[in-house]
Amino acid sequence: MLESAVTCLAEHGWSGSTVTVVAEHAGVSRGAAQHHFPTREDLFTAAVEYVAEERSRALRELPAPAGTRAVVEALVALYTGPLFRAALHLWVAASNEPQLGPRVTDLEARMGRETHRMAVDLLGVDERRPGVRETVQGLLDMARGLGLANLLTDDSARRERVVAQWARLLEDSLRD
Amino acid sequence: MLESAVTCLAEHGWSGSTVTVVAEHAGVSRGAAQHHFPTREDLFTAAVEYVAEERSRALRELPAPAGTRAVVEALVALYTGPLFRAALHLWVAASNEPQLGPRVTDLEARMGRETHRMAVDLLGVDERRPGVRETVQGLLDMARGLGLANLLTDDSARRERVVAQWARLLEDSLRD
Repeated sequence: MLESAVTCLAEHGWSGSTVTVVAEHAGVSRGAAQHHFPTREDLFTAAVEYVAEERSRALRELPAPAGTRAVVEALVALYTGPLFRAALHLWVAASNEPQLGPRVTDLEARMGRETHRMAVDLLGVDERRPGVRETVQGLLDMARGLGLANLLTDDSARRERVVAQWARLLEDSLRD
Repeated sequence: MLESAVTCLAEHGWSGSTVTVVAEHAGVSRGAAQHHFPTREDLFTAAVEYVAEERSRALRELPAPAGTRAVVEALVALYTGPLFRAALHLWVAASNEPQLGPRVTDLEARMGRETHRMAVDLLGVDERRPGVRETVQGLLDMARGLGLANLLTDDSARRERVVAQWARLLEDSLRD
């Protein structure tokens, strides 16, 4: 059901994704769906959070120690699949819909903190050193920007070259 | 009219922005609006392109020579105002609406090339040197990611620290 909600949101956007559409996609009755998720906002925020946690778990299982480039690739991959597409639809809808706004803002903050902590662990860097925290934040901002650039066209060839270069910049800066 | 279209798109999103809403906001008749822009797609793609060109012009008038930090700040500012918010609504709508898709894809490609060329000029760097092109591309991806992070909350304090740090890293890498 939650996987179906993310798939529908990624494919049809917020206005095309109703509880009925998701229940049908998941092969459950509308009544059962509404029993678990009384509102559309409940269903889609829960779905994006669940799938994000699944993705984070997979990322934490990256064989250690991974090189900087492998870590940057794995982080960027978080933002170039259906989950990011679904989350983007939810963020953009939340910017205009008052009943969605505060919940999505909370969700975004939690997901952002979690991804940041994971990035620091995977890169094996010490945030107490000046500049390290902001370096990692900027890397995740770049990853989100790469996700956006992949929304309308397949940006993978350009992305690969950007990732290779930025992994080099990070390596120089973080290993100093 | 075009400024009004961008304002409406930023404030109400794609589904809340019709030609009628924009005509009313701009104080022109619906007939006059439809004479100039026969379809809703015509109006909104023209509006985003026009306002983007206005913003680019302002950026090219940055007093030269500007330091790396000032240039990074000016580039990031392109993605944190109402224009980026409007463009984001248009991109996301285009990812699900077949009649909007190809036009917005073309517009995004033109705007991306133009911004990249401007960034190279403002930074005063030579793209023939290996890695420079991808460094600048990554910077613009980061700027778009920072725009996204500003969608639901005021992210300006965090953004300022990220910009300061990455301006330093870019300075080291580009001036080598």
